[in-house]
Amino acid sequence: MNDAKGKLIGVSVGPGDPELMTLKAKRAIESSSVIAYPVKKEGETSFALEIVRSAADISGKEILELVFPMDPDYVVREAGRRHAIDKLCSVLADGQDVCMITLGDAGVFSTYMRIDLSVSERGYETCQIPGVTSFCAGAAKAKVPLISGEEGLAIIDSAKNDGALRKAFDDFDNIVVMKAYDSIPEILYMMREREIPFDRGVVISNIGMDDEYVGGMDPGREYGYFTTVIINKKRRWTA
Amino acid sequence: MNDAKGKLIGVSVGPGDPELMTLKAKRAIESSSVIAYPVKKEGETSFALEIVRSAADISGKEILELVFPMDPDYVVREAGRRHAIDKLCSVLADGQDVCMITLGDAGVFSTYMRIDLSVSERGYETCQIPGVTSFCAGAAKAKVPLISGEEGLAIIDSAKNDGALRKAFDDFDNIVVMKAYDSIPEILYMMREREIPFDRGVVISNIGMDDEYVGGMDPGREYGYFTTVIINKKRRWTA
Repeated sequence: MNDAKGKLIGVSVGPGDPELMTLKAKRAIESSSVIAYPVKKEGETSFALEIVRSAADISGKEILELVFPMDPDYVVREAGRRHAIDKLCSVLADGQDVCMITLGDAGVFSTYMRIDLSVSERGYETCQIPGVTSFCAGAAKAKVPLISGEEGLAIIDSAKNDGALRKAFDDFDNIVVMKAYDSIPEILYMMREREIPFDRGVVISNIGMDDEYVGGMDPGREYGYFTTVIINKKRRWTA
Repeated sequence: MNDAKGKLIGVSVGPGDPELMTLKAKRAIESSSVIAYPVKKEGETSFALEIVRSAADISGKEILELVFPMDPDYVVREAGRRHAIDKLCSVLADGQDVCMITLGDAGVFSTYMRIDLSVSERGYETCQIPGVTSFCAGAAKAKVPLISGEEGLAIIDSAKNDGALRKAFDDFDNIVVMKAYDSIPEILYMMREREIPFDRGVVISNIGMDDEYVGGMDPGREYGYFTTVIINKKRRWTA
């Protein structure tokens, strides 16, 4: 590997509260001259960038918007993707390190890992700084353990993933359902089928925002996009 | 709740690298006058305390060792436990906040949550600061995603938990086995039974220590206590 090339650093910035960034993430960002962030379309607001601005001094740094289009057409999507990776690699080829910021933890439902792979394949060095996940932050807010003793924990991306959710309910004591904002009724239905009392679950939604909610699984409520449900089959959730 | 009482703050200090402490953890520790840490017997070294000493200035603070004995006799164990909680609560009753430090994240296999519950039940306010888990840090070291797309993730405390491990292998794409130091052969056996190639797994062991290891699942090797295995059934692990 050419030492003159820059390095790509995947920086996990945590779930939202700027103070939940790690010391390492802050230092990496402050000592790097280029901060990159992925968006789905040009000019889109980046929540990760807002977090970084609140926790670190990034004045005078180059801020690189990388558009990874979500177009339904594969050809358009891949062309956009290639263009974004080209843009990123040209900065690395220039010898500059780039901190690419990502919400939560880079290993948990993040597009960062795919970008990392593409950049590695082009011969650049990469590394990742882990961060606090939204489900750990949610559990802390709700004051529940995620997993303890000899239990297992299943994490599901969404209740739309019907089969995975069923298996999780059948086989695990602890279940985390992410992106659960529009599927509380489906989750409650599966709980009723299995005679799991509804008070075993807690909803953690839009933490730090105006409509923040930490409470019981109310099927009649509207939930914000950042909604996670944490269920322990044996423990009742109490505020 | 009496405002003159102190508050118990469960401070997750992350998986080992002091820089993986959050800004919030560092600030809580530095602005609190009492730091408590749990041990199994008197005088035991606390890895969490070592992390804190490296990342924060705790000179002049009261350091409170709390012994939660692991005696096989329930009566001895409970008496020890009650004594430790008494000691902790007497500081809180005095009006001082206490930061109780815990390795990794407070919600993941931590004794903290039980202590939190006991202290809450005695009428004191508590809160938790989430942290980076060992499995997120491990995934970052091994450069693998923990979960992506529409996959699920199962986290198992140990391969000794045979039934849970089988279910995880049968039903989930991603499997994390913690405390796997002495059970790599058992895990490999289950993978062979299911025709999952051995190169789908990566072992992350004793990160930051002299015998640090990030590599393939070698059954002939000795692994340190802090060993995690991350498996994705579909993806080959490459260094």
